[in-house]
Amino acid sequence: MTEQKIAAGILAADNEKRGNTLKADYEALGDKLARGGISIEAITDKVAQFFVAVPSWGVGTGGTRFARFPGQGEPRNIFDKLEDCAVIHELTRATPTVSLHIPWDKVDDPKRLKSHGDALGLGFDAMNSNTFSDAMGQERSYKFGSLSHTDAATRQQAVEHNIECIEIGEALGSKALTVWIGDGSNFPGQSDFTRSFERYLDSMKAIYKRLPGDWRIFSEHKMYEPAFYSTVVQDWGTNYLIATELGEKAFCLVDLGHHAPNVNIEMIVARLIQFKKLGGFHFNDSKYGDDDLDAGSIDPYRLFLVFNELVEAEHRNAENFHPAHMIDQSHNVTDPIESLIRSANEIRRAYAQALLVDRKALESYQESNDALMASETLKDAFRTDVEPILAMARLNAGGAIDPIAAYRSSGYRATVGKARPAVAGGSSGIV
Amino acid sequence: MTEQKIAAGILAADNEKRGNTLKADYEALGDKLARGGISIEAITDKVAQFFVAVPSWGVGTGGTRFARFPGQGEPRNIFDKLEDCAVIHELTRATPTVSLHIPWDKVDDPKRLKSHGDALGLGFDAMNSNTFSDAMGQERSYKFGSLSHTDAATRQQAVEHNIECIEIGEALGSKALTVWIGDGSNFPGQSDFTRSFERYLDSMKAIYKRLPGDWRIFSEHKMYEPAFYSTVVQDWGTNYLIATELGEKAFCLVDLGHHAPNVNIEMIVARLIQFKKLGGFHFNDSKYGDDDLDAGSIDPYRLFLVFNELVEAEHRNAENFHPAHMIDQSHNVTDPIESLIRSANEIRRAYAQALLVDRKALESYQESNDALMASETLKDAFRTDVEPILAMARLNAGGAIDPIAAYRSSGYRATVGKARPAVAGGSSGIV
Amino acid sequence: MTEQKIAAGILAADNEKRGNTLKADYEALGDKLARGGISIEAITDKVAQFFVAVPSWGVGTGGTRFARFPGQGEPRNIFDKLEDCAVIHELTRATPTVSLHIPWDKVDDPKRLKSHGDALGLGFDAMNSNTFSDAMGQERSYKFGSLSHTDAATRQQAVEHNIECIEIGEALGSKALTVWIGDGSNFPGQSDFTRSFERYLDSMKAIYKRLPGDWRIFSEHKMYEPAFYSTVVQDWGTNYLIATELGEKAFCLVDLGHHAPNVNIEMIVARLIQFKKLGGFHFNDSKYGDDDLDAGSIDPYRLFLVFNELVEAEHRNAENFHPAHMIDQSHNVTDPIESLIRSANEIRRAYAQALLVDRKALESYQESNDALMASETLKDAFRTDVEPILAMARLNAGGAIDPIAAYRSSGYRATVGKARPAVAGGSSGIV
Amino acid sequence: MTEQKIAAGILAADNEKRGNTLKADYEALGDKLARGGISIEAITDKVAQFFVAVPSWGVGTGGTRFARFPGQGEPRNIFDKLEDCAVIHELTRATPTVSLHIPWDKVDDPKRLKSHGDALGLGFDAMNSNTFSDAMGQERSYKFGSLSHTDAATRQQAVEHNIECIEIGEALGSKALTVWIGDGSNFPGQSDFTRSFERYLDSMKAIYKRLPGDWRIFSEHKMYEPAFYSTVVQDWGTNYLIATELGEKAFCLVDLGHHAPNVNIEMIVARLIQFKKLGGFHFNDSKYGDDDLDAGSIDPYRLFLVFNELVEAEHRNAENFHPAHMIDQSHNVTDPIESLIRSANEIRRAYAQALLVDRKALESYQESNDALMASETLKDAFRTDVEPILAMARLNAGGAIDPIAAYRSSGYRATVGKARPAVAGGSSGIV
Repeated sequence: MTEQKIAAGILAADNEKRGNTLKADYEALGDKLARGGISIEAITDKVAQFFVAVPSWGVGTGGTRFARFPGQGEPRNIFDKLEDCAVIHELTRATPTVSLHIPWDKVDDPKRLKSHGDALGLGFDAMNSNTFSDAMGQERSYKFGSLSHTDAATRQQAVEHNIECIEIGEALGSKALTVWIGDGSNFPGQSDFTRSFERYLDSMKAIYKRLPGDWRIFSEHKMYEPAFYSTVVQDWGTNYLIATELGEKAFCLVDLGHHAPNVNIEMIVARLIQFKKLGGFHFNDSKYGDDDLDAGSIDPYRLFLVFNELVEAEHRNAENFHPAHMIDQSHNVTDPIESLIRSANEIRRAYAQALLVDRKALESYQESNDALMASETLKDAFRTDVEPILAMARLNAGGAIDPIAAYRSSGYRATVGKARPAVAGGSSGIV
Repeated sequence: MTEQKIAAGILAADNEKRGNTLKADYEALGDKLARGGISIEAITDKVAQFFVAVPSWGVGTGGTRFARFPGQGEPRNIFDKLEDCAVIHELTRATPTVSLHIPWDKVDDPKRLKSHGDALGLGFDAMNSNTFSDAMGQERSYKFGSLSHTDAATRQQAVEHNIECIEIGEALGSKALTVWIGDGSNFPGQSDFTRSFERYLDSMKAIYKRLPGDWRIFSEHKMYEPAFYSTVVQDWGTNYLIATELGEKAFCLVDLGHHAPNVNIEMIVARLIQFKKLGGFHFNDSKYGDDDLDAGSIDPYRLFLVFNELVEAEHRNAENFHPAHMIDQSHNVTDPIESLIRSANEIRRAYAQALLVDRKALESYQESNDALMASETLKDAFRTDVEPILAMARLNAGGAIDPIAAYRSSGYRATVGKARPAVAGGSSGIV
Repeated sequence: MTEQKIAAGILAADNEKRGNTLKADYEALGDKLARGGISIEAITDKVAQFFVAVPSWGVGTGGTRFARFPGQGEPRNIFDKLEDCAVIHELTRATPTVSLHIPWDKVDDPKRLKSHGDALGLGFDAMNSNTFSDAMGQERSYKFGSLSHTDAATRQQAVEHNIECIEIGEALGSKALTVWIGDGSNFPGQSDFTRSFERYLDSMKAIYKRLPGDWRIFSEHKMYEPAFYSTVVQDWGTNYLIATELGEKAFCLVDLGHHAPNVNIEMIVARLIQFKKLGGFHFNDSKYGDDDLDAGSIDPYRLFLVFNELVEAEHRNAENFHPAHMIDQSHNVTDPIESLIRSANEIRRAYAQALLVDRKALESYQESNDALMASETLKDAFRTDVEPILAMARLNAGGAIDPIAAYRSSGYRATVGKARPAVAGGSSGIV
Repeated sequence: MTEQKIAAGILAADNEKRGNTLKADYEALGDKLARGGISIEAITDKVAQFFVAVPSWGVGTGGTRFARFPGQGEPRNIFDKLEDCAVIHELTRATPTVSLHIPWDKVDDPKRLKSHGDALGLGFDAMNSNTFSDAMGQERSYKFGSLSHTDAATRQQAVEHNIECIEIGEALGSKALTVWIGDGSNFPGQSDFTRSFERYLDSMKAIYKRLPGDWRIFSEHKMYEPAFYSTVVQDWGTNYLIATELGEKAFCLVDLGHHAPNVNIEMIVARLIQFKKLGGFHFNDSKYGDDDLDAGSIDPYRLFLVFNELVEAEHRNAENFHPAHMIDQSHNVTDPIESLIRSANEIRRAYAQALLVDRKALESYQESNDALMASETLKDAFRTDVEPILAMARLNAGGAIDPIAAYRSSGYRATVGKARPAVAGGSSGIV
């Protein structure tokens, strides 16, 4: 039996209140979709089967280099974090797995962690290594790089850390390693672009060699931050080179916030699918840089356009296409659990809308260069208010019609606020 | 007698080595400039009279939200920081003042601080308040804003903090208060733009009321970070409105890294001068966002173009024009003292180059729309290698011909590395 | 009687086909809104009263510096253009006025133009002057600027052209002049920022002096293009200075595509409203620069957020708030009439969605810093599929339920394709 | 004997005036460089051997979609253009080849063109095809694409045009074909990203098949414009895929103005060199978009950093490294000949500065992570005023010490202004 963090009675009571309205809305939408030849049940089933992993680090309050303002009941460790993740999944039924970050989530006994996950009904998604900061007691510093460091021993330490992440992941049932590094430079001349990338590739090859046969390795590109002049894995072009150099288990991870201003991200997604190297996503939203805001909160149409590419690829049975879906956000001004609930819903919303696109009509408009009707075909799907589908998918799976409301009713935050000591915020004096 | 942090003998020895070469280079450049009717001595004198304030927080190693990697001999407090600042001034003779940050630099007895500054030959530039992070023991949090917070008591607390900064500044001999706030929102709808700005203006008026008669108040705009959807003081347009609403002692501060991509910053500088509201600068450089890199390290021509506006304004005796020059950088991969030395030199370099512009020719080309020759007139000045002028200005004032070399010779970093305990770096787990 | 360009029978037949479905959808939405205490009829009425002007130049196929690809039946002159504009209004009932561009739309006898408009049921919105290109036979060139040119006679010519635009507008019943200039520079040094702006202000004052008492003058800012280094009226800060310098009949025009990357445009709108200087809009959408794409086609949520500010200002009875709504787009790959129909609908859509925002709830969440619920309050309104409201507003006013479909049924494009000779496209060799 | 467009006497007289000063400056710089162990003669020789191609379309005045303002003596055809190009080379001795654009430069008899080039001492660089605009009388339109068009016959027409370009090029002695297309879309949904790219690759393979054995084909990426939502060849990642799919004669062309804001272009250059696919450059400068301004006029340090990568690659004998150097600019406010003279000089300047980098020191600082000294090593080279080297290289090769001055003295523009009829400018009404 899965342990429930939100009392069944509270959830049932909240759903009870909203059941009739949902039923009416679902039927009205069903009628409307039926007119267009679409079965709402079929869409609801597909949505119910769409899952996204929650990042363990996402349930704690984030911050910026200027300050961090913790909230009530901040999780103290990975066990607390798993409980918070369980709440998200109980209410959304969309997030059955958690993605860990080592060393932040390192424990003495991974088996105990696995049991804790099992008890909460949670599995373990991709492992994330960390060589962008120095762990306590670490012998060599990553101040000037990790996998691409000029010093061979530092690179070796970083390689070994990644291998350790694989080993922990094997104990937990994970099947993928995500490698994001901050390596780069702050000033022209500081690094040699070519030698740095050669060293990076050598290190990655050493990690790749240790990758279990049924695992995938995801490399993640990012334009800038923490490096402010050059970044070793700066864009999808470099990321593609990496995946190609490493081999068939290597894929590119796309974080929606890691691109230059104005870049057409959905097109990058299409290219990586076409060349069989799309590994998956770190979902979030942004207005300026790597803002790590809640998915779909700034530009919901862009999120939809990304999902349009994913559904299109499904539709044409694209080869080697089985992307991993993960959220990667920083929650600075909201309750992290609420932001993750909302984001999981938004991601499913974009997926549901993309499923509604009339692909036959779209292709026909594209072929005849009817730009207006082609674009309206996407817009028609995007404009559909699919909330009844999302709610029904949650309800059917034992979740909440309105997960935020149910969460607030449950008093979970206040409860953990009592159990978990308050955390001091403030500034590091890093400006 | 001013206390010297760099032994006079070391400095003299280093200068001795380089004296003859400097003399030759200075003469060659002097001849070349003389051919164009320019007196190298006049330029050297002007450069020698150009000063820029060093930020107290700049002498510690900075960081990002991902990690901080401290260096050797990190300053423990404002007294250590002042000593590091003294080193910079001893070698560059360009940075006689320090800009403090409260509460980071708050001490029980400002008079003791003043004496320490006096002993080191340092004065105190603009005071900086901090309401973008929560100080230890602070009653109300700035998580959701400070001067624009919806809660009146929180705004009051922020106002009082600024007034306290003025009071400390008065004790230290400062003549200006710089107000930069992180207030804003991360999501559409989170804040009402209009009411937030009304509250901000009310708070600023309360601070302004307390401003001593011979002080100026500088408001500083920034496009984003720490807020990722909207920022209350987001650009120079809003900043200008603030300065106008407040009164004649209120001016706009321009931080070179706080603008949208591609924005023409030198034009903003020109507009603020023309409308008599340019207060001064936070100098640094950036490639992506508020990268806080060393001045002139990414786009030295842009720095020159800013100084071209300043010299042009001097040239035509622009009204109400007496900008404050301050550095505001984050030094993550260099010795902060070295980066500040370099930056002070770069700022003087841009000033010296701007002084070389043939303004009569420039105006004539502008009037006749000779775009090519007008732009070449600026380039001619920019291309001049003015290092001999900068070095001679330093040498004449008792500084170093090559301040980085002299600093390295002095062993200062190793010395303070012994006296000051090592600082742990690592990650906050904020991603 | 207004002359109809689309046969009444065709329109009626198309509406007939769609009437029942619309009725059902409208009722279902009405029920849903009623549950939230909102009267769908009240919203429909407000939408029906919302109008946006169509630009005369928008009904011709646009182009880029690389090429222009004309379509069938390109309008030959302003009389043809008015007929195309009439089609848009007949079908949408949202665009009763046309905005002219002089000299492109200059005719010998403005009264005849007025009569033509009257016959088609069209009025005349803001006049647009053109000093960014040289008209045939023009004495002095605007190659190096117009209102800010270094040459007084050229400035005078540009001033007189603007006065002529006012005079034509008076004959046509227009009540506003929009001034957008391309003045600026391509190279650092080419122009003196300060003197250029002084000259611009002087010229504008001369125009302002001639402005009829019941007219408004709108200045329009733009970051870049056609000038590629500096632009005299480059952003809202400068635009605000202009409106303030000129006087109470002067206002700022916001073109949604004229901003730096990532800029928060809705916040600029809010600031201009707060300081009583928002004149109106040039609606369009963009992904990169001034792309002039169909409104809402790239980022529909951004368009909604702009309207959220407008409705908020209405809601609180903001002073001096009566913005002009105009479309300004370039239609390169669609039938311009279709793009304008769609855009008019999208603009009304954003308005309708903004009307649905629960402003009481929003304010309460804002006051209590409930960032998540505040942002969801906006999203709830945005997610509502208001198409039934838009369609009913059109239908009630005599327009089309589905204006694109009705337009295509009408065969209008083929008809004018016969009457109007084909236009050669091709490239200017300008690259 | 090569025909001279600038009378030898005029050139000699201008050089005579400046010879002594140059000699003095060259000696002073030589002494300075010698102190650092560098032979000024060796650098001068390398600079003298560095050439860059001039684009035939660059000698006419450019324009924007808003207007074009022609100058005096606009070239009427490719024969006139070649004469203008000859002037540039006579004075700079840096531009011995011209890059043609078909059909703009198409002539009945390529042999006559070849003879004209021979007579002027000019060769022919890469051929440029044009499928981004419709040529007069062209059967099928490129309005909706060319090499990636949905219509097979249109694609075939575009393929054949490219093959024709190769054939013309063969007659002229060219050895490369540059393919830049405007294909893309203006609205989400308009094109299928994947199918478009498949079609593009098929078309390119058909062209590649026809490529002579000793030719190279360059594909050029561009973020946007003329397409404003998606572009088929949008970035270097896609460009790399193209070059890889096509084969060993296919390379990537980098235009400095075709990137997203803030992108680190020099790093892209390094990656393409490392993976053996850098074909060459279209040099220009930009502040906002594809501004096509004079090389080095906006950010000279960026141009230097690109050349730093090129010299570094030379230094380590990078494999498959022999980049083509071409200018691609639009001259809207200057005499095009002057802008091209200046740009050729700026490109050589960046090369000369990059040659001065102390690569041994740089590598050592990089290896030891001495970020400050590494970056200062680049800056030291950049700060060197290498104008005497450039001037001496020109003088030694028979060019001008000050080519702009000599050009102005020659009265060439006035002379051709008499022979070539004035061209009307004005606006296309495309906005």
